[in-house]
Amino acid sequence: MASTVKLLFCFLLTISFLSLFPLSSSAKQHPLDPLTPAEFNLVKIIVKRAYRLIPHNISFQYVGLDEPEKQAVFLWQSNPARIPHRRARVVTRLNKQTHDIIVDISTRSVFSNKIYKGNGFPLLTIEEQEAATELVLGYGPFKASMKKRGLNISDVVCSTSTVGWFGEKKSKRVLKIPCFYTEGTVNMYLRPIDGITIVVDLDEIKISEYHDREIAPIPKPEPTEYRLSHMKPPFGPRMNNAATVTANGPGFTLDGHTIKWANWNLHVGFDARIGSIISMASIYDLEKHKYRRVMYRGYISELFIPYMDPSEGWYYVTYFDNGEFGFGLTAVPLEPLNDCPANAVFMDGYFAGQDGSPVKSPNAICIFERHSGDIMWRHTEAEMPGDVREVRPEVSLVVRMVATVGNYDYILDWEFKPSGSIKMGVGLTGVLEVKPVTYTNVDQIKEDAHGTLVAENTIGVFHDHFLNYHLDLDIDGDANSFVKTNLVTKRNTEAKTPRKSYWTVERETAKTEFDARIVLDSKPVELALVNPNKKTKMGNHVGYRLVPGFAASPLLTADDYPQIRAAFTNYNVWVTPYNKSEKWAAGDHVDQSHGDDDLLTWTNRYNFIAH
Amino acid sequence: MASTVKLLFCFLLTISFLSLFPLSSSAKQHPLDPLTPAEFNLVKIIVKRAYRLIPHNISFQYVGLDEPEKQAVFLWQSNPARIPHRRARVVTRLNKQTHDIIVDISTRSVFSNKIYKGNGFPLLTIEEQEAATELVLGYGPFKASMKKRGLNISDVVCSTSTVGWFGEKKSKRVLKIPCFYTEGTVNMYLRPIDGITIVVDLDEIKISEYHDREIAPIPKPEPTEYRLSHMKPPFGPRMNNAATVTANGPGFTLDGHTIKWANWNLHVGFDARIGSIISMASIYDLEKHKYRRVMYRGYISELFIPYMDPSEGWYYVTYFDNGEFGFGLTAVPLEPLNDCPANAVFMDGYFAGQDGSPVKSPNAICIFERHSGDIMWRHTEAEMPGDVREVRPEVSLVVRMVATVGNYDYILDWEFKPSGSIKMGVGLTGVLEVKPVTYTNVDQIKEDAHGTLVAENTIGVFHDHFLNYHLDLDIDGDANSFVKTNLVTKRNTEAKTPRKSYWTVERETAKTEFDARIVLDSKPVELALVNPNKKTKMGNHVGYRLVPGFAASPLLTADDYPQIRAAFTNYNVWVTPYNKSEKWAAGDHVDQSHGDDDLLTWTNRYNFIAH
Repeated sequence: MASTVKLLFCFLLTISFLSLFPLSSSAKQHPLDPLTPAEFNLVKIIVKRAYRLIPHNISFQYVGLDEPEKQAVFLWQSNPARIPHRRARVVTRLNKQTHDIIVDISTRSVFSNKIYKGNGFPLLTIEEQEAATELVLGYGPFKASMKKRGLNISDVVCSTSTVGWFGEKKSKRVLKIPCFYTEGTVNMYLRPIDGITIVVDLDEIKISEYHDREIAPIPKPEPTEYRLSHMKPPFGPRMNNAATVTANGPGFTLDGHTIKWANWNLHVGFDARIGSIISMASIYDLEKHKYRRVMYRGYISELFIPYMDPSEGWYYVTYFDNGEFGFGLTAVPLEPLNDCPANAVFMDGYFAGQDGSPVKSPNAICIFERHSGDIMWRHTEAEMPGDVREVRPEVSLVVRMVATVGNYDYILDWEFKPSGSIKMGVGLTGVLEVKPVTYTNVDQIKEDAHGTLVAENTIGVFHDHFLNYHLDLDIDGDANSFVKTNLVTKRNTEAKTPRKSYWTVERETAKTEFDARIVLDSKPVELALVNPNKKTKMGNHVGYRLVPGFAASPLLTADDYPQIRAAFTNYNVWVTPYNKSEKWAAGDHVDQSHGDDDLLTWTNRYNFIAH
Repeated sequence: MASTVKLLFCFLLTISFLSLFPLSSSAKQHPLDPLTPAEFNLVKIIVKRAYRLIPHNISFQYVGLDEPEKQAVFLWQSNPARIPHRRARVVTRLNKQTHDIIVDISTRSVFSNKIYKGNGFPLLTIEEQEAATELVLGYGPFKASMKKRGLNISDVVCSTSTVGWFGEKKSKRVLKIPCFYTEGTVNMYLRPIDGITIVVDLDEIKISEYHDREIAPIPKPEPTEYRLSHMKPPFGPRMNNAATVTANGPGFTLDGHTIKWANWNLHVGFDARIGSIISMASIYDLEKHKYRRVMYRGYISELFIPYMDPSEGWYYVTYFDNGEFGFGLTAVPLEPLNDCPANAVFMDGYFAGQDGSPVKSPNAICIFERHSGDIMWRHTEAEMPGDVREVRPEVSLVVRMVATVGNYDYILDWEFKPSGSIKMGVGLTGVLEVKPVTYTNVDQIKEDAHGTLVAENTIGVFHDHFLNYHLDLDIDGDANSFVKTNLVTKRNTEAKTPRKSYWTVERETAKTEFDARIVLDSKPVELALVNPNKKTKMGNHVGYRLVPGFAASPLLTADDYPQIRAAFTNYNVWVTPYNKSEKWAAGDHVDQSHGDDDLLTWTNRYNFIAH
């Protein structure tokens, strides 16, 4: 890697110039705070300066905090004078190559710059997606295709679709462009213009493939309206508005990105790729008079959405929404009173535009105390004399963001409870991605339609959503073990009673990453992360249980390309030792990836986790 | 059954006397309304009159509405003049026999009376349980046992435990009596006095068995306090109080037992055995200008809680909380602001005492509009020009009750959403049932302790809670089919694309009750009740999906007595045709039952459900 070293040397020359740049907020900064607008600007200048001898335009595909090593953060926590180096991770495209760059903000220098030689491409920028769709709308053959269909080009809106990887030896950085007809509707996804394959080369910014394959029907614009203000009667039931009124304010304090609420202390970050990030969540121990660590970092690491139609227009629709489109880039402004209740506090996010300049994502995160009407704990003592009763209503803290990736809106909640539990919730809403068909009634369908006829000429195509949560749990410290508790049936041979059977528990501590891969099936297990060095007064390990909801497993064949790329879905739970570089379940550069730098690869590479 | 017919004749003589009894509220009554206090009194008089020639005391084990046949209720709905016969179901113990009696309230007569010859005993009354514990506290040998242990008898509280069935040919109606030491605590369940077997014969009201087997340690009273008002510092975090404020009132109307809210119309009942019952839930169709049926009846039909310790003191602890103790009998008054939020409306329940007189269960049910801060539906249109955004906050209606069966408090919620969905929620809280041991640290435990050491000398014994929901869904009418949709992997042989696989759906309509038994394992299925005679405009069946949470299966061996009695847990889903008499998943008379009149028996008996 001689060239990398050479470049690095070249970058170090730029320090003296850039160290003059002021960073007003750095004094109070938490090492895990997302980059500030000033820092984005600084990073942009540092990188552009580094490239000053090279004539090409640089495209910033990703700029975000390069988080310090965990131990450095805890060192800072115990001694705030020991501020870790503030660094940014930058991914650029330059001269058809991906550069992985680390910028040291503290020293105003490029710390490292590597040309990425592996498979896959970085996060897409909003600007290049816009450029690609504009290209199509101005493209002669496309205009002719619209004319042939009798469509008014000014009512056509195009979107972008990643193309996946299907065994090609060499991939170009391309997008496919689906287009929609918006005449009579704002619900464009329900009026797809099908039958045209359009491929845009993102490095050349040109249309590299165009086939008008067939003229498909376009579903009608009615009834696709969803805005109440534009609807005609009959209206649905009038819903009561309500406000949660807390006499003593919002119930939490927000200092920069750090929240203190009830017995919780946690940090909320924002990132172009993964959206909201929870860091250093810890819980106050009343008896030990100190916070005890629970989770170092928690975020959604990937989201895989394979559609189930093998035909020409759909086979490649196998999105990786985090790694391709970015949950931070697609975060939408939260609407007060509707997206978040009246008592919510809002937080802006920032990411870098394609030119490296900071872009504000207003009201990207909201934080609120939830008073849902649930009961936290209660008991009425019916057998003792007297009126013994204690009821405590549930209160929780919610950190919410919404990522709207095209047609789907993902409501991403982190909920913290005074009991110590953390609940991750994903709400899936928005509109469907549909395929136009000639059918107007299911009776006409004689073959596999690969979906459900949801309206005339409209098939809602079958698909899955697989989310991977990266949870770096540090229960009471970072030496944690993964314990699987099996519930096993026993015959009663010990007691002289007529009872014939019972169940008991058998615990296994995972010794390797292989042991810790779990498919949640009907076998009764309880999963826990414990700290084997910390025990309760009774001698039980201190730990956290992982309580899954209804679990799903992939149904694609193991040799199918989308499944190779989304091998993280092979198991419901994986446990890997801390490694700062292992952030994203489907790998760093996911667009058109080959599945060779992912959770499966890491688990094959390292093989030891037990403490 | 000659004797039954004779009794019936005898009862008919009483009509003229009883028909004088006024029932003021009957004019506005819904056929599924629970019995009123006046009706309980009337039923008591009708039954007592019928028994007037027999000297023994009658014990009313159960009195509740004998619901009319479904078709009679719908006939009334379309023509309110056609009021179905108002009947009560009464279960009495008389002369060591169980009588199943139907009282016709409309005609003030006993409609039928059958001596139950099968296995199992009826619901326990609160009074007989109190009598049994009083008997023990006054029993000489018991006082001596307490003295031997150095315990103050005035600090001893006894409870009741059903004894199950373990293969005995002939069973007496008995209870076992566990006792607790309350010195220094109100949390009696955490100070069990172990090592004594006490059996009370309920028909004789006498102690039929007494063995002081061994002196076990009694866990210390500290730290078992749960009342905040009695706690010493350090206190947990102060929680914000909050009120949900709705400018336009509670958002629903309550007329008798009928609730109208948003697009829902439903009836809420109350029963000694099963607690809250939802009836005739229907949803308003804006286009058809009428309510469409969704669920005729919904309630928790049984709750099975087997403990997992085979030893003498524990092997029989295999409760059926509904059929033995009754969710209505154990309903506790809901505490405003804590059990239910500020905007809740409360409803009283009534049941019959052992003498047949009505007993009020104040604030047994609360109904409230939930504004949880969730989002019902949203979309931000990022790809269209203009600011297109629509966000609708979630609002739902909750019908709640709490049944405190000894140590456990079950929070039983029915939640109705404007989307049409119904969510059943069970919150499990209260305190543990524990076993005293000599251990003070897990390191001392060398054998299977059958539980977790939760405090010094205190094992929280392993156990399960299996709930069965009886859901009589009548989607858009009563001819419904049960459809299982299997998601199956297919190889791509149809399209000339590099995609290798996809999944599609294969639907099966259950033809028999056998087909419809479902174990929820890792095989991907979707379950639905559909109305095959009603189709959407697109030709899809109108239906409701059953969306399970994480499902559990029993771990007892199939030949073990508790499992034979709780065969309803063998499958996660059962579907049976409507039969008014098939109400309770573990059978009518569950205490000491043999599992010969339950969901499994019915499924073996009838065998056809498809439409």
